Amino acid sequence: MTVALDKLKYEIKDPALATLGKQRIEWAGREMPVLRQIRDRFAQEKPFAGIRLVACCHVTTETAHLAIALKAGGADAVLIASNPLSTQDDVAASLVVDHGIPVFAIKGEDNATYNKHVQIALDHRPNIIIDDGSDVVATLIQERQNQIADLIGTTEETTTGIVRLQAMLKDGVLTFPAVNVNDADTKHFFDNRYGTGQSTLDGIVRATNILLAGKTVIVAGYGWCGKGTALRARGMGANVIVTEIDPIKAIEAVMDGFRVLPMAEAAPQGDIFITVTGNKHVIRSEHFDVMKDGAIVCNSGHFDIEIDLKSLKSKAAEVKNVRPFTEQYKLNSGKSVVVIGEGRLVNLAAAEGHPSAVMDMSFANQAMACEYLVKNKGKLAPGLHSIPVEVDQEIARLKLQAMGISVDTLTPEQVEYINSWTSGT
Amino acid sequence: MTVALDKLKYEIKDPALATLGKQRIEWAGREMPVLRQIRDRFAQEKPFAGIRLVACCHVTTETAHLAIALKAGGADAVLIASNPLSTQDDVAASLVVDHGIPVFAIKGEDNATYNKHVQIALDHRPNIIIDDGSDVVATLIQERQNQIADLIGTTEETTTGIVRLQAMLKDGVLTFPAVNVNDADTKHFFDNRYGTGQSTLDGIVRATNILLAGKTVIVAGYGWCGKGTALRARGMGANVIVTEIDPIKAIEAVMDGFRVLPMAEAAPQGDIFITVTGNKHVIRSEHFDVMKDGAIVCNSGHFDIEIDLKSLKSKAAEVKNVRPFTEQYKLNSGKSVVVIGEGRLVNLAAAEGHPSAVMDMSFANQAMACEYLVKNKGKLAPGLHSIPVEVDQEIARLKLQAMGISVDTLTPEQVEYINSWTSGT
Amino acid sequence: MTVALDKLKYEIKDPALATLGKQRIEWAGREMPVLRQIRDRFAQEKPFAGIRLVACCHVTTETAHLAIALKAGGADAVLIASNPLSTQDDVAASLVVDHGIPVFAIKGEDNATYNKHVQIALDHRPNIIIDDGSDVVATLIQERQNQIADLIGTTEETTTGIVRLQAMLKDGVLTFPAVNVNDADTKHFFDNRYGTGQSTLDGIVRATNILLAGKTVIVAGYGWCGKGTALRARGMGANVIVTEIDPIKAIEAVMDGFRVLPMAEAAPQGDIFITVTGNKHVIRSEHFDVMKDGAIVCNSGHFDIEIDLKSLKSKAAEVKNVRPFTEQYKLNSGKSVVVIGEGRLVNLAAAEGHPSAVMDMSFANQAMACEYLVKNKGKLAPGLHSIPVEVDQEIARLKLQAMGISVDTLTPEQVEYINSWTSGT
Amino acid sequence: MTVALDKLKYEIKDPALATLGKQRIEWAGREMPVLRQIRDRFAQEKPFAGIRLVACCHVTTETAHLAIALKAGGADAVLIASNPLSTQDDVAASLVVDHGIPVFAIKGEDNATYNKHVQIALDHRPNIIIDDGSDVVATLIQERQNQIADLIGTTEETTTGIVRLQAMLKDGVLTFPAVNVNDADTKHFFDNRYGTGQSTLDGIVRATNILLAGKTVIVAGYGWCGKGTALRARGMGANVIVTEIDPIKAIEAVMDGFRVLPMAEAAPQGDIFITVTGNKHVIRSEHFDVMKDGAIVCNSGHFDIEIDLKSLKSKAAEVKNVRPFTEQYKLNSGKSVVVIGEGRLVNLAAAEGHPSAVMDMSFANQAMACEYLVKNKGKLAPGLHSIPVEVDQEIARLKLQAMGISVDTLTPEQVEYINSWTSGT
Repeated sequence: MTVALDKLKYEIKDPALATLGKQRIEWAGREMPVLRQIRDRFAQEKPFAGIRLVACCHVTTETAHLAIALKAGGADAVLIASNPLSTQDDVAASLVVDHGIPVFAIKGEDNATYNKHVQIALDHRPNIIIDDGSDVVATLIQERQNQIADLIGTTEETTTGIVRLQAMLKDGVLTFPAVNVNDADTKHFFDNRYGTGQSTLDGIVRATNILLAGKTVIVAGYGWCGKGTALRARGMGANVIVTEIDPIKAIEAVMDGFRVLPMAEAAPQGDIFITVTGNKHVIRSEHFDVMKDGAIVCNSGHFDIEIDLKSLKSKAAEVKNVRPFTEQYKLNSGKSVVVIGEGRLVNLAAAEGHPSAVMDMSFANQAMACEYLVKNKGKLAPGLHSIPVEVDQEIARLKLQAMGISVDTLTPEQVEYINSWTSGT
Repeated sequence: MTVALDKLKYEIKDPALATLGKQRIEWAGREMPVLRQIRDRFAQEKPFAGIRLVACCHVTTETAHLAIALKAGGADAVLIASNPLSTQDDVAASLVVDHGIPVFAIKGEDNATYNKHVQIALDHRPNIIIDDGSDVVATLIQERQNQIADLIGTTEETTTGIVRLQAMLKDGVLTFPAVNVNDADTKHFFDNRYGTGQSTLDGIVRATNILLAGKTVIVAGYGWCGKGTALRARGMGANVIVTEIDPIKAIEAVMDGFRVLPMAEAAPQGDIFITVTGNKHVIRSEHFDVMKDGAIVCNSGHFDIEIDLKSLKSKAAEVKNVRPFTEQYKLNSGKSVVVIGEGRLVNLAAAEGHPSAVMDMSFANQAMACEYLVKNKGKLAPGLHSIPVEVDQEIARLKLQAMGISVDTLTPEQVEYINSWTSGT
Repeated sequence: MTVALDKLKYEIKDPALATLGKQRIEWAGREMPVLRQIRDRFAQEKPFAGIRLVACCHVTTETAHLAIALKAGGADAVLIASNPLSTQDDVAASLVVDHGIPVFAIKGEDNATYNKHVQIALDHRPNIIIDDGSDVVATLIQERQNQIADLIGTTEETTTGIVRLQAMLKDGVLTFPAVNVNDADTKHFFDNRYGTGQSTLDGIVRATNILLAGKTVIVAGYGWCGKGTALRARGMGANVIVTEIDPIKAIEAVMDGFRVLPMAEAAPQGDIFITVTGNKHVIRSEHFDVMKDGAIVCNSGHFDIEIDLKSLKSKAAEVKNVRPFTEQYKLNSGKSVVVIGEGRLVNLAAAEGHPSAVMDMSFANQAMACEYLVKNKGKLAPGLHSIPVEVDQEIARLKLQAMGISVDTLTPEQVEYINSWTSGT
Repeated sequence: MTVALDKLKYEIKDPALATLGKQRIEWAGREMPVLRQIRDRFAQEKPFAGIRLVACCHVTTETAHLAIALKAGGADAVLIASNPLSTQDDVAASLVVDHGIPVFAIKGEDNATYNKHVQIALDHRPNIIIDDGSDVVATLIQERQNQIADLIGTTEETTTGIVRLQAMLKDGVLTFPAVNVNDADTKHFFDNRYGTGQSTLDGIVRATNILLAGKTVIVAGYGWCGKGTALRARGMGANVIVTEIDPIKAIEAVMDGFRVLPMAEAAPQGDIFITVTGNKHVIRSEHFDVMKDGAIVCNSGHFDIEIDLKSLKSKAAEVKNVRPFTEQYKLNSGKSVVVIGEGRLVNLAAAEGHPSAVMDMSFANQAMACEYLVKNKGKLAPGLHSIPVEVDQEIARLKLQAMGISVDTLTPEQVEYINSWTSGT
């Protein structure tokens, strides 16, 4: 495909990076058989013909496949970055050059540019918004109430974004349907747990080349992301302490063999700290004060607010870069604290984000959620909606098939048994 | 407490076993701090004054604490066994002798006796039924429609029982409120997963004294019970194969590092088979035919219908007892298959059921579900109801406190953040 | 086989137990294919014709197979218990009644009886001693120097016994060859690690029915037994702390993801304590003083000296039996400590010892070590000898074969490569 | 330190890389407290005054600390690369520019250059050779017999190198002392197991960004490196199959819960293959033929001969680069095979080699082995020597101390007990 670049609006680092991007997108496709089948169906059925769509996502090789599938389905789609640090510039280039998709994303873009790109996306007057952290939706509500009439609905796949949508719902400003993609089993079981688990550790190891075995790792938060992170840290030989605010999750962590402590007690024991809570200032001034010299701190939650870096900076005599994406804060106390990726998502800042195999299912959910919104235009009440369970099951079925794995099917006798209540002991 | 036994109706093995039973009940109490606190509150508040209650449960040391708590709360309670093999006769004796609770349960009772006990229980004309597998509720519906007017509601804690209640609901015969205790996080996360996991392996090891390391273990079903069983089997060094019918659970098992195969392919590879599906004839004729010589087969699902023993018997030249609770079927083919506990719940048949620490939370849910039914008498619609989330959280909080574990609490800044949607990237 | 019991000297609990014993011995044989093949060869080759042999072992179903194999090889063998608590009386009965092997062992025999049995064994004037903890050898050296001339050599399979033999060697009293069976890879890798690991937890669970998930378990000692115990405790969901005196083993434990602490710091944190050090008073007065109320203490090292029970008794206001093999010490401080199996080997006191599958290899080593001593009579220097590596490899090969597992063999090209040093980068 | 570069001979990529190299070396030092303490002692004691030393190592940030310590001890040291792909050019630059150490190593150097560097090293007429894979020693023996008189001894730390030295010993050409550093517990327990385990997976993930959870990983070889690799692969959620030729290691893998299969049976099942055997053509023609489409193949053994790439090339219609260090072979059969790092050490080719924390102990052993050779000059017999156990223990002690971990010490009573053999049951 040759794209007439002069007719296309976009803002990317360098179109010349497209060759590398294309190669890497192709590689990711190897592990994305579900989205590939959906794309092939979309190409035939064109469910998004005439639909203006904005996707605000981490611009990675996996997102590329989502964008390509949406376009194949007829969507008039614009892609912006959901995080200033996570953009893969070569991927952005290939989407523009090889696929003619307007992308507005540059790795390391400043906040002003980031916000400008959100505005450009909204200027597209989307019928569908695929959001990731709810920044586009929040801006729409705050600044573009007049465009809400155009909107069929939105989708959201992060826990953080869902928490935000729930707050909007409570405040009465969520006046359109929003599909909670995060709620799909084929999303949060896999992406949040296995994806975040592996890629978070990958980011830490690439940034620091540190041996995980024998280290004490503090995982703040024991939701799906925290569970995956704690599991993988243990799998690499670390001794893991979990911090939580929810008593049920806390007992679950204890029963899984982890120690559970308040952060104030965990802070002096940790070699590596990972926040995955979705909340603000989980690691803050009083915790920095009691950390070991050389403690490493990073975040794998959606926003960069989990670690109170402002407070850390105020204690620092010097901040220096010690490895790519890795800064050492020499504190006035004489001790030092090491921060990876400026407290942004460590798996995207210092590694390549979630592996394709999990994003395959997450983005299959995104794609089918968009189709669901379009098919049910005008029928869905304002507020949060789950992905239909049939969609969830279908994605799992396609994935298993692609992995060459068979499962059992119920015998007629078993079907009868499961539907009957009269036979007992 | 001295109970005037001549005034009490009961049917147990031997009242003389009460001394041992009392000692063992006391021991179990060590690990049941939540139920203890609830019992103390019940003793003061008497929520069940004037309430006739039937509890159909495995008669174990843990159930004893539930029965004692209900009685302390004023209930006029009768206890029967939910499974002919799981009754601990010493516990039954102590409940009668030391606590004056009418118990009708004898380990190894035949089906006629079992059914007679269900009828005795229903003769008590219960206002509340605590059921375990839904046998009492099913009998009530089929044979005692006239007593439904007496009923405030029922509670059910097994997955099997819930499936049955759902079938009743679909058939339009569930005309009263039933609380799904299994749905509580503090129930299924812990009891089904960690309780079943440990106690199932405990039953197998006690019955066979076999080394688990290096064995291939087939776990049929990857619900909460199957997850726990697979996890613990791996924890003991086994190589685990999972069978499933649900594609989402199947991928979850794969991502957890297990092999997933249809039973027909798994059957020739297994050294030990464990069924935890809630369905019928999960292991059947065609599977026995291809098993290794000496394969060990057992069940940890609620009913003894998961293994098709009738089919196995039809192939057998000889059945002999090789260890307590363990029978070897010499097949006409020359190979043998070993069955533990006649295909009944292996953790109750060959070991002591779930450890007290998990039953503490499960039975706290049962106790509080009964209180909830009484407090909301007449207000709950017919059909299935979940435990209120506040109850779930409260049980977790009490448990953590008893374990001496602290969790974090949200700072005012964090509370504000979590309720706001305007601050983003 | 019908044995004329009136001609046989023995001292056992009750010959009538033989029926049960025979059944259980037969069951254990299922998992002991290596020893079975060795027995068949011995029956043909009669390597022990004319040899008087004493075996001092835990009298279990597995030991029965060793004794039967030795007798099949022509040995005039006497069996005594290596531990007063570990004898399985039904097995002793079957060995006497069904196999005509003189056994002197009664479960729970007092120290005087135990010592009498050692003397009876020495009265047999053994040419070969199979020892387990070195009690027979130590008595021989101290009291029967005149019998040393009869001795071809001894074998020893416990770490504790080896430490003792090394002390004898240093003191110049080990004047005959002793084969270190513990040194064989097919012994310590499997028996000490997987056998002790599983059976120790089995003993604790049978004795207490406690949930291991979420408990803090202190494992004292990180040798092969300690490694196995720590691994399995984690496998059951416990949080494990290791104590050590050896810095290399300590780092290994840290790198394996465990916490390492001095016992004084671990003591206040533990729910369950397991000693497997081979040393004395590893848990002592100052540790009991700081334990949590209700802490459970047990030992899986060879001798019952690892826990200082005398000190514990001196602090106790009351000692009462709370479950079979389980005693609660109510301390004057108001707290209580629970001790399993009187501080003797918990896996033998409260469970059935090592599973047959590991003892198969350990006892194959014992049997072949005896044959090695006889074949090399007069040729081996006094002192400790390892099992020849060929024997070790052969046992592994037989085991794999019996398990139906194939391994690769070197291609001619690979053989050449491995023997050459000239081809490099 | 300013080095007069014009007086120094060296061959590196670019001295300008020194700034980055210095920063990275400094970072690695954080995790190398043991070598730091040894360096400080060397600086005072100058054990290598007047000694010409050649170190042939992977030129990494960790090796830099070894070279600096040796120089601090007075050595006249030359450093060359032990592998053409593993050199970190920035580190080489900093060693030259900042420390004045002659380095001959360029990442990606061809075989001719590699061999030239070996010759330059030998031109230095070393008294001590630190070798890694035995290339320098093999060349010395084959081509420079006249220099052997200069040699005090050599050290070797790889399993591969030790196998080669043993072959030399058998051939009668090892006529000088060689210290087997690999034999030290503080080396192979940690470096081979935890170092190789983590860094091998790190290399695979960086090269492919593949999700490990749910993948079938074939680990060829279950020595220390294989154990570590299998453990960590499982820790990341993979299902692991082990291949072996040694029956003892094979059973160990089975008991650890892995499947063991011959490579011919494993080949069609694997998603990812990792060789760590030290042998040649472990994956070869017949295995490629039956692999799944897209199988990923890599090596973590010392030499690049474990995968028969020549055979693979002969089957390939096309070879293309799909990611950095990653090539896809499109086979004539239509399937493809992906090879990482050209079959060279994947952890060094695609990641950064072993983390500093393990190399700290390995290189502490190297440094102290050199000192041991010098101190015992003329006293050690030709052939292989182990590191003295006191050195091993001392390294462990220093490491624990640096990690802030305390262990127990024997009480006088325990010391007496451990040295006595008279007290028994």
